[in-house]
Amino acid sequence: MATLLHIDSSVLPGEASSSRSIAAAFRKAWEEQHPEGTVVYRDVAASPVPHITAAAWSAGFTPADAHTPEQAAAFAERVKLIEELEQADAVLIGAPMHNFSIPSALKAWLDNVLLLGRTAGETPSAQGTPAIVVASRGGSYAPGTPREGYEFVQNYLEAVLKNTLGLDLDFIVPELTMAPRNPAMSELIPLYEASRERAFEDATTKAKTLAKHLAA
Amino acid sequence: MATLLHIDSSVLPGEASSSRSIAAAFRKAWEEQHPEGTVVYRDVAASPVPHITAAAWSAGFTPADAHTPEQAAAFAERVKLIEELEQADAVLIGAPMHNFSIPSALKAWLDNVLLLGRTAGETPSAQGTPAIVVASRGGSYAPGTPREGYEFVQNYLEAVLKNTLGLDLDFIVPELTMAPRNPAMSELIPLYEASRERAFEDATTKAKTLAKHLAA
Repeated sequence: MATLLHIDSSVLPGEASSSRSIAAAFRKAWEEQHPEGTVVYRDVAASPVPHITAAAWSAGFTPADAHTPEQAAAFAERVKLIEELEQADAVLIGAPMHNFSIPSALKAWLDNVLLLGRTAGETPSAQGTPAIVVASRGGSYAPGTPREGYEFVQNYLEAVLKNTLGLDLDFIVPELTMAPRNPAMSELIPLYEASRERAFEDATTKAKTLAKHLAA
Repeated sequence: MATLLHIDSSVLPGEASSSRSIAAAFRKAWEEQHPEGTVVYRDVAASPVPHITAAAWSAGFTPADAHTPEQAAAFAERVKLIEELEQADAVLIGAPMHNFSIPSALKAWLDNVLLLGRTAGETPSAQGTPAIVVASRGGSYAPGTPREGYEFVQNYLEAVLKNTLGLDLDFIVPELTMAPRNPAMSELIPLYEASRERAFEDATTKAKTLAKHLAA
């Protein structure tokens, strides 16, 4: 009875979004492997979680029985998001690059979920949970490319998802997704298409591998 | 008749926030230098700007006369923020580190303001505008420290504010701001206090230097 936490964050809807499309392919393959499993879905672009507030933040450093009503209410929202993470057997995140970094809506989710002494700290509560991130991007930011120094998605998510939350992190990285829209990138369309095809294959393969891992 | 665009983004209010306090000191010194100047103030934590939406994003790639009503409305909000930046003679941003990166509310502002062909691209519309960022952080992420690789505020803002928007970027970096709150950091309190004092001095000095620069 495995549970997948699936988070989308692209501003683009449906098939217009590479991260959504490829995450959906992963999810479909995962559901085929886990016909009785549960998927908890959050679309933080369509239904944003609140930016963290002073009350929500300070509640994390205050014993629950000393919370003000405002802290208690704000903290309850954080705990709901945290429990979704803690109860997941695997996590799937669509994290498109917006201006070299993650969408603000995904950062808002992270700011709510990271809680020292619970999800972060000496023994993070979701430590070891497998996490797949679909890190789509309009160009290429791979090592050796001119834009290598502008990669603040994978590098950042390594710091928070892997090194702070302790998730067992893996990426699928569809590149050059702006090629079909941007005439200046038209020569890159074949590379874009190859990257996209590989990403879809990766999604299916990784979902199957993960299923074997969870069953073992 | 100089104009300062002042943006705060800390979740903490007033003096509880280092970035707000030090930005306020800069602003005070700036106002003393520009008694007839204008300050345009945005508190994106207290009054968040919307996360960018599909309509707001796609409007940036669509000629204005082809905008749908939804695109036109969303784009008007972006243009308002963009004009505040373009009309500023100097920009002051409080950018505290939240989970190694900028607050989600500040990222939302950036995602609205960055617009290819206007604020970004070959000739960015605010190119050369001086910008001071108060990049406060709970620990130290300076080169040579163990947490150097977790610095996604200055490194990221260099990529977007300097290398993309073309602003003339300068930082004030108050470190170790968690020391007075965190018993495990009590030995670092003297270093925190020294960093804080230096940041306030920097704020005043930089505001005066900037005034001379603008007057020249």
